[in-house]
Amino acid sequence: MAKMTPRTLSGFMELLPAPQQQMERILQTLRETYALYGFTPLDTPVIESSEVLLAKGGGETEKQIYRFQKGEADLSLRFDLTVPLAKYVALHYNDLSFPFRRYQIGKVYRGERAQRGRFREFYQADIDIIGDGKLSILNEAEIPSIIYKTFSALGLKRFRICVNNRKILNGFYAMLGLTEASGEIMRTVDKLDKIGFEKVEAILTKELGIPAEKAAEILSFISINGTNESVLSGLEAYQGQNPLFDEGLNELKMVVRCLADFGVPEEAFAVDLTIARGLDYYTGTVYETVLLDHPEIGSVCSGGRYDNLAEYYTDKQLPGVGISIGLTRLFYVLGEQNMLNPALNTAPADVLVLPMTDDLSAAVSTATRLRESGIRVQLYAEQKKFKQKMSYADKLGIPFVVFLGEDEIAQEKISLKDMRSGEQTLLPLGEAAGKILDTLEEFGKAAPIC
Amino acid sequence: MAKMTPRTLSGFMELLPAPQQQMERILQTLRETYALYGFTPLDTPVIESSEVLLAKGGGETEKQIYRFQKGEADLSLRFDLTVPLAKYVALHYNDLSFPFRRYQIGKVYRGERAQRGRFREFYQADIDIIGDGKLSILNEAEIPSIIYKTFSALGLKRFRICVNNRKILNGFYAMLGLTEASGEIMRTVDKLDKIGFEKVEAILTKELGIPAEKAAEILSFISINGTNESVLSGLEAYQGQNPLFDEGLNELKMVVRCLADFGVPEEAFAVDLTIARGLDYYTGTVYETVLLDHPEIGSVCSGGRYDNLAEYYTDKQLPGVGISIGLTRLFYVLGEQNMLNPALNTAPADVLVLPMTDDLSAAVSTATRLRESGIRVQLYAEQKKFKQKMSYADKLGIPFVVFLGEDEIAQEKISLKDMRSGEQTLLPLGEAAGKILDTLEEFGKAAPIC
Repeated sequence: MAKMTPRTLSGFMELLPAPQQQMERILQTLRETYALYGFTPLDTPVIESSEVLLAKGGGETEKQIYRFQKGEADLSLRFDLTVPLAKYVALHYNDLSFPFRRYQIGKVYRGERAQRGRFREFYQADIDIIGDGKLSILNEAEIPSIIYKTFSALGLKRFRICVNNRKILNGFYAMLGLTEASGEIMRTVDKLDKIGFEKVEAILTKELGIPAEKAAEILSFISINGTNESVLSGLEAYQGQNPLFDEGLNELKMVVRCLADFGVPEEAFAVDLTIARGLDYYTGTVYETVLLDHPEIGSVCSGGRYDNLAEYYTDKQLPGVGISIGLTRLFYVLGEQNMLNPALNTAPADVLVLPMTDDLSAAVSTATRLRESGIRVQLYAEQKKFKQKMSYADKLGIPFVVFLGEDEIAQEKISLKDMRSGEQTLLPLGEAAGKILDTLEEFGKAAPIC
Repeated sequence: MAKMTPRTLSGFMELLPAPQQQMERILQTLRETYALYGFTPLDTPVIESSEVLLAKGGGETEKQIYRFQKGEADLSLRFDLTVPLAKYVALHYNDLSFPFRRYQIGKVYRGERAQRGRFREFYQADIDIIGDGKLSILNEAEIPSIIYKTFSALGLKRFRICVNNRKILNGFYAMLGLTEASGEIMRTVDKLDKIGFEKVEAILTKELGIPAEKAAEILSFISINGTNESVLSGLEAYQGQNPLFDEGLNELKMVVRCLADFGVPEEAFAVDLTIARGLDYYTGTVYETVLLDHPEIGSVCSGGRYDNLAEYYTDKQLPGVGISIGLTRLFYVLGEQNMLNPALNTAPADVLVLPMTDDLSAAVSTATRLRESGIRVQLYAEQKKFKQKMSYADKLGIPFVVFLGEDEIAQEKISLKDMRSGEQTLLPLGEAAGKILDTLEEFGKAAPIC
């Protein structure tokens, strides 16, 4: 028969079993951490009606959308988890309690130009808190704590959560009489890290036509940095000139003041006046998260406060705050940077049971009893040479092998081999299970990222 | 602004938060149980190249496939998890160790006619064990144990795993000289439950043109029932006439013999000669699982042994055995039958912390410390009346509310209200956390299905 050459589409991540186990650990860590903060899991369809999904217009991503006909229906694959959330909240408004806290981890689709490290199918891991009409600032203050806990639980140490407030920026540009240009200015300032002060100044004055003295004020404003305290006191110099600015400054102070009580260490956090999160969508606190040793990757967790989640679907005012992790890209980058922890147990099983007799009864009972203790077991009864069986366990990194020959069965014991130390011991099953569980507990402490 | 009416496509399940929590518990139980048996998680793209996905032809489902162009590419959404597995194993053959045991839980797409309880996007939860060239019969014998453990872990009690062997059927029809018609005969016999003996006989003789005495032999054969022992001894009467039959009978005996050692109680299992699993694909043991109180639902977990997983992609002979649960439909049916356990904790949090002072510091610290103990906490700082706050906790079924007023703060204690008993106590935080954890442990024992 003629064969079709199997292949996976480019831009679609398909992992081998060991890295997939690492990915699963990351997914499980995210689910558990988000749940700790009282977010409920949500799952919405991958396919939506195009007119519903694109009610707002696809914006920059319009061309990238997977859109097609099926029968009479005009359908699209979701390109983020925010539009489906807006639809969900508007549609199920009467059945929800507010503030509504949900997390969603799911695949989204964007037909981007294929290139290394860019994916057309990728996981986003989002949390959002949606208020009905109003939403307390405490929710904005809580977000850095969630980011901190999430990345710490994943094993990351050297990262920083950068925070700013759009009201401060909008208020400041209003003081300068530059409200109309503020969007363009923020997009320019956002590039500061990449292009430097001089080029920012050049764009402000030459391309955007901002008078030199105002450009200088902008540069002096975004140069305010240092500890949180010193940035806040630097900002206080501008107080009293614009009510929006003052409101933003008060919010920012509240966010900073809560950090310690939320368990976020000072060094994991920075007020950064240069970040704005391009989208006009954001109206209050905005967040970015950078890996200190890999600033070139950009933000690995971003988001902010917005005033109106679902304005395309409902008249209800639904303010919210949320953050998103681009998980597939993050996983790819961690792999590239050798930051995936090789000490993580990625084996498909904790124990490989090898029957050495024709009667498999003892081997089956042993596997069953080990599984009842919560130990992951494979039972290997293939007709192979002993060496091949051991090599199977070895290749997969299965930490323990159990042998059951006539001697063991006669003595009602098992031979347990620790594959890492090479040590082999003859033990009663219960004792062996205890030993395995102790080792696994130690093993299980390894975080997915190192 | 004109609003777009939000809607979700028909045939796409979108759950409210409480049922979604139940679904998540089911997903988590499946992941844990499959892992216990040494299956490794896999995740493959939802989109594949049409020529790869449809190499075998879509068969009955061809018209249902979501197929579309994106740029130059002819793409399709996966319609099951078996074809992607075949592609994966053929593509990554050199990187895998065999037997390769994987589970995959993911969404698949079929544009079926919309009707109640039929879904166009639905989860399948599959496990497969793939051998390289050969695969020990012990793998087939292990499957009933996995099914038993899975449904028991979900909380189901009254179900039965029905097993047959295609070699027995094929051997039997060969004895009768009916090999050519055997596919049609099996499809007819498969309907026995629904249409009864008389109609089966009528179809066999009139539609398929099988002589009356042979039809009688078929009916007498499929009437063999009773305990496993009596079915096996009924089958022994046919031994020695056809080698394939004898091989199948030996395999079936092996499967039955292993049950007790695998921890499967006799009453959860039955040899059933009427099941064949329509597909020609299966070549050995076949499985169906029925809910004893809802036989009308049909099989909720089915599968079998096959000889050649990936013949469209590779010359390698890759026999395997696998089962699949149609999870979305199962969840829907369980809901319809009121079998989803209302005692399951579906709240988004275990504790709602209510600050009663303007300074939120104590409330934030309390929430942080409770979360550090592994307790899921929401911090509620919205400007609402006390009654509304309590009603929020009540509606969401949050089991505990913590109050922090000036008295509590002064005494370095918290007021803990158990929402189910109504009991309110003033306690040091550590003690309160212990009490909450004890209650949750009890609570956590509830299985998703009742």
